[in-house]
Amino acid sequence: MQNKVTKLFGIKYPIVQAGMIWNSGWKLASASSNAGILGLIGAGSMYPNVLRTHIQKCKDATTNPFGVNIPMLYPNIEELMQIIEEEGVKIVFTSAGNPKTWTQWLKERGIVVVHVVSSLKFALKAQEAGVDAIVAEGFEAGGHNGRDETTTLALIPLVHRQVSIPLIAAGGIATGNGMMAAMALGADGVQIGSRFVASKESSAHDAFKNAVILAKEGDTQLTLKELAPVRLLKNKFYQDLQALYKTSPTSEDLKNLLGRARAKRGIFEGDLEEGELEIGQISGLIDKIETVSEIVESIIKEFKACQICISRINLNNQK
Amino acid sequence: MQNKVTKLFGIKYPIVQAGMIWNSGWKLASASSNAGILGLIGAGSMYPNVLRTHIQKCKDATTNPFGVNIPMLYPNIEELMQIIEEEGVKIVFTSAGNPKTWTQWLKERGIVVVHVVSSLKFALKAQEAGVDAIVAEGFEAGGHNGRDETTTLALIPLVHRQVSIPLIAAGGIATGNGMMAAMALGADGVQIGSRFVASKESSAHDAFKNAVILAKEGDTQLTLKELAPVRLLKNKFYQDLQALYKTSPTSEDLKNLLGRARAKRGIFEGDLEEGELEIGQISGLIDKIETVSEIVESIIKEFKACQICISRINLNNQK
Repeated sequence: MQNKVTKLFGIKYPIVQAGMIWNSGWKLASASSNAGILGLIGAGSMYPNVLRTHIQKCKDATTNPFGVNIPMLYPNIEELMQIIEEEGVKIVFTSAGNPKTWTQWLKERGIVVVHVVSSLKFALKAQEAGVDAIVAEGFEAGGHNGRDETTTLALIPLVHRQVSIPLIAAGGIATGNGMMAAMALGADGVQIGSRFVASKESSAHDAFKNAVILAKEGDTQLTLKELAPVRLLKNKFYQDLQALYKTSPTSEDLKNLLGRARAKRGIFEGDLEEGELEIGQISGLIDKIETVSEIVESIIKEFKACQICISRINLNNQK
Repeated sequence: MQNKVTKLFGIKYPIVQAGMIWNSGWKLASASSNAGILGLIGAGSMYPNVLRTHIQKCKDATTNPFGVNIPMLYPNIEELMQIIEEEGVKIVFTSAGNPKTWTQWLKERGIVVVHVVSSLKFALKAQEAGVDAIVAEGFEAGGHNGRDETTTLALIPLVHRQVSIPLIAAGGIATGNGMMAAMALGADGVQIGSRFVASKESSAHDAFKNAVILAKEGDTQLTLKELAPVRLLKNKFYQDLQALYKTSPTSEDLKNLLGRARAKRGIFEGDLEEGELEIGQISGLIDKIETVSEIVESIIKEFKACQICISRINLNNQK
């Protein structure tokens, strides 16, 4: 038996490790691929030459399939795509942009293309653009997020009903039970972010990883909706933003406070006060830092246990 | 085999029809109870004498268990509770208030008490107050909603991990697949609202029911966060609110625009422009008006089909 997602990528389990700015270099991606899921290098935080190095190191560290996630609003996008081709990357996840721009170019080079969307409308556009699969990501997801605020529970069945290509659910999934929930809603696989932030192989700073495992329910918020909505931990930087919001700021004011490299400062350098600490709501459920292999094993074990539980539900005999 | 929720209420299926302002009178509640789920009369829109009439009519229309949902911020709360006792109501769902206030009083009278929460913190408080079960409702739910904006997918596993009493998931659930997802996350049952708004037996105006089945993904929004967060359709009233928000309004300004009886005007009287059209994100998935019995049948059928699909997933053989 094969699943649409395992078949598309040539992987063992229908799980994708999300490409995440400042978290997902070659170490995380290759560890994920070696654990039987799809590892992704997140190009969002990388200069072109840095991306090339990460791809080369990833190829050395795993013989399993891996991919690269590229936010298309990246200024050096043409140079990045050149590197993708030269280095023989087989799988590309595109996000933050029009899927029409690069899909054909990538597919002509035999590259599997997956596009990340946050709404049904964009899912339909991506399918029309010819992508091979869709990641549909809900409001609870960490980092950059959609404007409709549709949650994973509402988004997945809507996309499943109208889209025929493989569907990968993202946002709010960190366990085998979450994976089961997503598949019950019609997803063919899941993309998991926050849980891999708290992995040994993530390139995030230990201080940030610790903040993630300490996070409780209600500790994240979607903010900066006027620029690009982003979900982050409610730290000092977030409180500064809240104070600014009280003064009816312009977009320019918000941009000035945000400044540059806040995500790097928080995630990579571990500045928990001034950094932009992008993480999902499901961080409330994550309470330890493990290796990728331990994480994947526990997700599969939970999924199988959940499968048994579900098989025992007998609605006929109840009363 | 019995489920915690079916046993607690003495019902066939672990499904609760949500008590919803201007939607759920005796007709909807008794139809739900007759269909094997728990019907709830929503007292939120009722004067005390109206509630008494609805309870009496419900008792005449079904011999199955039903309950009453009471928002505790209701001004006539003592009078309502008196009616609950006098009319021999066996199940009460409380919301919008401190579960400590009425739980003991109700339990002393042999009444099953369920409290509705939107966060883990409130779930723990409700359990401590001695309630018999919890409804945990996510951000995607229609109507009044929590401040943490935690989605059902994130909230249910968090509550499940720390709460031992029966757990009912709400928000974003309209189908058997949604019910399966909630149970995979650890819920013992589900509360469904929006889909029953679009039932023949709902007391909502036909114009509102039609608006619900026409609603698409992205058509609802959580707003009025400064007063009490509420999810509604983005109609003219919502646009007027958005225009007001641009002027940095005070709470008083918002209250003035909201005025009185906006929910009645929209839901019950069918004024789609000026009314407050409370509905959940999952309205995007609802595309027809059916009888309660048809809805329950289709949910159970979908659940069973989903169960079979899930049993066929074999993670061992994949690659």
